[in-house]
Amino acid sequence: MQALVYNGPGIKNVEDRAKPVVRMPGDAIVRITKTTICGTDLHILKGDVPTCLPGTVLGHEGVGIVDAVGAGVTTFKVGDPVLISCITACGRCDFCRRGMYSHCTTGGWILGNQIDGTQAEYVRVPYADTSLYPIPAGSDEEALVMLSDILPTGLECGVLNGKVQPGSTVAIVGSGPIGLAALLTAQFYAPSVMIMIDLDDNRLDVGRRFGATATVNSAAGDAAQQVMKLTDGRGVDTAIEAVGIPATFELCQAIVAAGGVIANVGVHGVKADLHLERLWSHNVTITTRLVDTTSIPMLLKTVQSRRIDAKQLITHRFKLGQILQAYETFGKASDTKALKVIIEA
Amino acid sequence: MQALVYNGPGIKNVEDRAKPVVRMPGDAIVRITKTTICGTDLHILKGDVPTCLPGTVLGHEGVGIVDAVGAGVTTFKVGDPVLISCITACGRCDFCRRGMYSHCTTGGWILGNQIDGTQAEYVRVPYADTSLYPIPAGSDEEALVMLSDILPTGLECGVLNGKVQPGSTVAIVGSGPIGLAALLTAQFYAPSVMIMIDLDDNRLDVGRRFGATATVNSAAGDAAQQVMKLTDGRGVDTAIEAVGIPATFELCQAIVAAGGVIANVGVHGVKADLHLERLWSHNVTITTRLVDTTSIPMLLKTVQSRRIDAKQLITHRFKLGQILQAYETFGKASDTKALKVIIEA
Amino acid sequence: MQALVYNGPGIKNVEDRAKPVVRMPGDAIVRITKTTICGTDLHILKGDVPTCLPGTVLGHEGVGIVDAVGAGVTTFKVGDPVLISCITACGRCDFCRRGMYSHCTTGGWILGNQIDGTQAEYVRVPYADTSLYPIPAGSDEEALVMLSDILPTGLECGVLNGKVQPGSTVAIVGSGPIGLAALLTAQFYAPSVMIMIDLDDNRLDVGRRFGATATVNSAAGDAAQQVMKLTDGRGVDTAIEAVGIPATFELCQAIVAAGGVIANVGVHGVKADLHLERLWSHNVTITTRLVDTTSIPMLLKTVQSRRIDAKQLITHRFKLGQILQAYETFGKASDTKALKVIIEA
Amino acid sequence: MQALVYNGPGIKNVEDRAKPVVRMPGDAIVRITKTTICGTDLHILKGDVPTCLPGTVLGHEGVGIVDAVGAGVTTFKVGDPVLISCITACGRCDFCRRGMYSHCTTGGWILGNQIDGTQAEYVRVPYADTSLYPIPAGSDEEALVMLSDILPTGLECGVLNGKVQPGSTVAIVGSGPIGLAALLTAQFYAPSVMIMIDLDDNRLDVGRRFGATATVNSAAGDAAQQVMKLTDGRGVDTAIEAVGIPATFELCQAIVAAGGVIANVGVHGVKADLHLERLWSHNVTITTRLVDTTSIPMLLKTVQSRRIDAKQLITHRFKLGQILQAYETFGKASDTKALKVIIEA
Repeated sequence: MQALVYNGPGIKNVEDRAKPVVRMPGDAIVRITKTTICGTDLHILKGDVPTCLPGTVLGHEGVGIVDAVGAGVTTFKVGDPVLISCITACGRCDFCRRGMYSHCTTGGWILGNQIDGTQAEYVRVPYADTSLYPIPAGSDEEALVMLSDILPTGLECGVLNGKVQPGSTVAIVGSGPIGLAALLTAQFYAPSVMIMIDLDDNRLDVGRRFGATATVNSAAGDAAQQVMKLTDGRGVDTAIEAVGIPATFELCQAIVAAGGVIANVGVHGVKADLHLERLWSHNVTITTRLVDTTSIPMLLKTVQSRRIDAKQLITHRFKLGQILQAYETFGKASDTKALKVIIEA
Repeated sequence: MQALVYNGPGIKNVEDRAKPVVRMPGDAIVRITKTTICGTDLHILKGDVPTCLPGTVLGHEGVGIVDAVGAGVTTFKVGDPVLISCITACGRCDFCRRGMYSHCTTGGWILGNQIDGTQAEYVRVPYADTSLYPIPAGSDEEALVMLSDILPTGLECGVLNGKVQPGSTVAIVGSGPIGLAALLTAQFYAPSVMIMIDLDDNRLDVGRRFGATATVNSAAGDAAQQVMKLTDGRGVDTAIEAVGIPATFELCQAIVAAGGVIANVGVHGVKADLHLERLWSHNVTITTRLVDTTSIPMLLKTVQSRRIDAKQLITHRFKLGQILQAYETFGKASDTKALKVIIEA
Repeated sequence: MQALVYNGPGIKNVEDRAKPVVRMPGDAIVRITKTTICGTDLHILKGDVPTCLPGTVLGHEGVGIVDAVGAGVTTFKVGDPVLISCITACGRCDFCRRGMYSHCTTGGWILGNQIDGTQAEYVRVPYADTSLYPIPAGSDEEALVMLSDILPTGLECGVLNGKVQPGSTVAIVGSGPIGLAALLTAQFYAPSVMIMIDLDDNRLDVGRRFGATATVNSAAGDAAQQVMKLTDGRGVDTAIEAVGIPATFELCQAIVAAGGVIANVGVHGVKADLHLERLWSHNVTITTRLVDTTSIPMLLKTVQSRRIDAKQLITHRFKLGQILQAYETFGKASDTKALKVIIEA
Repeated sequence: MQALVYNGPGIKNVEDRAKPVVRMPGDAIVRITKTTICGTDLHILKGDVPTCLPGTVLGHEGVGIVDAVGAGVTTFKVGDPVLISCITACGRCDFCRRGMYSHCTTGGWILGNQIDGTQAEYVRVPYADTSLYPIPAGSDEEALVMLSDILPTGLECGVLNGKVQPGSTVAIVGSGPIGLAALLTAQFYAPSVMIMIDLDDNRLDVGRRFGATATVNSAAGDAAQQVMKLTDGRGVDTAIEAVGIPATFELCQAIVAAGGVIANVGVHGVKADLHLERLWSHNVTITTRLVDTTSIPMLLKTVQSRRIDAKQLITHRFKLGQILQAYETFGKASDTKALKVIIEA
């Protein structure tokens, strides 16, 4: 089968690989019908993710059809259409029982990282019963690809951790795909103010189209002042960090209201300053989270009932044979204005 | 009347002051029967609290008898025994309605800071209806002085923010009065492991006496490793920071388990490093809080029903006339082993 | 001044009354600009509310302008536009501190019940600081009248108690004003299914217009079966009872899913059967609540930001001089299709 | 092997049965070391549980040693000491993912009901990975038998659903084993008042020994008045129903405070009156629940750390060969004063 393989920093190739087979009783083999590329895949290609060894098939998102199941699988059978979670959950360890699938002791984010992933014709999914989700008949497959990772991430790490509430004020720092996913899912909770902050006016335009009530271009260095002005000097109830660098995390500290929450979504490579000399008495909460994807069942319902239009995030479409071109397009997002690209297998 | 007055950095005097009078309809004048000294009073005396101007009577804790009330006071009458909250709450601003009395727009921590405080024969308490608490008949006054500030602080900022739960593991960094207050109130929630961490063996002994299941002397620099060993490598569900310096806050980051909480109680003067490069995917929560004292009614019930022995925190007793000596004793706690000192007015 | 006075069962008159005056330091006198009629007013007129004595001015909803304040009022001054809560809250008793204003020991639902109400040119509001809400400049007054009682009731007793969540299924039994208020506010939380149940097709039409995803006419006696069919046999996550009779409460028991909530909003005159022989193992929650109006600040923000169109509930408008006619229209709602009627003073 | 078999209403026999074998990849066979008898077993023997067919081995509690595992079991291996949950959870259906194991679509309460149970030398446990719990080395097996059903039931259905909090007031109606389990686990949350109510003075004595702060003998018919007196007329924050008849459920309605919770634990055979004509405005919550046993991990920690002495519930001990005598003793609890009986296999 065709697969996109990471062959060390900066090197990716489309290779011909053997079709994966069931190894454990809980495994399922899924024939991929649609997958996509994540910002994390680019991190791997930069060499930033040491757990991902050269030779690994990339990709941790996608939908497909069950092609084979191990003897222990009880929920799925061959032919079932399924959504693949980016997080593999055994469903039985202490973390899984607490809904913290991201820290599953034998799973977590392993697809396209520690084991072969979804940017291929077939993928082996361990613990299939708790790592796949049945797709309701008549679903729009493309929309559901957004439920493998990006929407749960925006929702769980940003919106739920950020305690977005009806009438509350929210600022999202970073109007890329993940910030926009937070923006879309924040609207489940009817906040009254949603401010998108970014350096790129095009991305802010997208933010406005996706429902932002205000936008702030942070290029001029006065983003904090602008947010304060937009909130009558109070700051925001929820500041969502969706970039992953010290400057944006510190901006969140400057704009969070007393009693508010900073919900970190960004992947950080270095430490940041925490201004406890000011925040110690500010009654704030700061949260971090690797997505658990426990929200997939809820997201499936909201997509089905058209409470959210997940397809808005999709800007480009490719065939699996064009996946290098898809990477090219996704990698140069500021030029191509790519958000999420669909790859049809 | 006699009062302990802050007269600028390093200077405090017992002075003869005019008895305070009702100025606003919501005011009450309380004749102090018992008060105490807080670590924050020492901060003021060092000149660290710019909101406290020279000439201010210090003190924000105490119990007493209502001596006079303004026309708008409906809950209390002359002669009522009352507990004074360290936080003055108007009960009507947005913050007060949300239970965030610490950020009351016209109150908050003002006693012994922005207005004259409780280390005197009488004190004026604004918004008396929502800043005083009736004392049940037959109460032990000394125990109740611990409810003005130190127990609510340990409970709200440490235990409640830290989400201590039955069976959970807790580490408290700092075994001073405030860390011990957290230790005492943590036991409302039956955690299975309570580790006290400090540099001072005497304080650790007190911690053990107050219920700690293990202690760690951090002098050797291996506190994190010791905590990891005590928790089978998992770290603690709740790490309570009760010191207020970068090193102890960073220790909390090193020992918090995935999915855990760092609850900051300490007063910080400088920023600290936040290791987002590790914590971004660790599903942790970090909280800060200035005490709101919303827990006083609950604490009153637990003291009444002997669920907590608040008097354990009291080590010394003085008359108001000896208050300079009380400050001396409290200020040299490492020698005197003072925790809280009672001053009888 | 003109006022609508309850003069015993079945008797209401427009009378000339003395303008109210400040009696307590916490009082405000409000000049009413807009008020409305509640179903509860009709209950009083039937003689069903023994706490309301003949001679009482009716009405507990409205907006107006502050005309006078007592010495203890700190939040409002003469000339301020205000929204009147149907619940008077002292802000200082145990219940108020817990946000349970409905059970305020010296307040609660007293306006137009135990003291003169808002269907008059002026009203005296006790505990003004915690019973009135400032109206933002440029607000639509008519919309805000819906925030005195009906929207907080639908939201607090129905939606919040009912734990409506994104993707969840909701059935509302009773498509009258209060059921519709629940329907409107449920949409803050993006449920995927909202089923309105009523005997009256016209009301169900309104339900559909207000956002219901399905409607069930219960006249045929098969409402439970219809709901089960609409939910693939699972029942609903939230069943909101908005009628107040045993039959509708029992319908809720028949349609609530395992793990679901029955949120009672209706005013009941007699007991109902609770089928514990079936429900004991069904993991359900049943809630009751007299509205606390703690959600008014949140509702103000959602109205301001157009997250909700509160004016949809208004069907008729009258001058204060026409209030008997307004009662006539509101009382014959099945003919007039009246939901809420605005009375301009 | 020896097993206690239900052979129709009123008939139970010790029979020789074939040792169970693994049938599904998720199964484990457990050699029972200790088991016990539950009130539900007596219900089955009366013929009250139609799902339990004649020929079924009874029992749903116990600890033992893993004797065999199916190919899909990843958490346990032969020789592991394990605790058996009374609830079998697949860990993968919608209910299990929400922690509602009691309603697992292919599990739930099936042991000793729909499939053979634990009152035997061996038992087959389906979905072993999510239905068994590892026993820490050095544990007291007898104490852990109390974690299969009775303690989780008291805790989850009574204490957690009842929202017991530090300082709160609790009444438990029914001082039998299950009411006592609620009483023991309520103490995790430091309530200030715990009132046991029963008709039997001996059971009330046990209640006092287990930590009740007051007891009420309800024989005289004035239990409600006595509770009101004990709570200064306010009623209790939490009323736990641990009997299962209309009279005790109605007593809970009479004693619950405004804003309080009635947590039903009892197994009801008939409906009860719900006094909505009084409770509609009382802001109460009523909960029902079949135990999910999601609290077993937490209970294991509290038993290990001696936060609870689970063995207090054990009054008698028998060998498996004496199980008919054990039933006799347990069935005549009012004479024998039996709470829980341990049966050693």
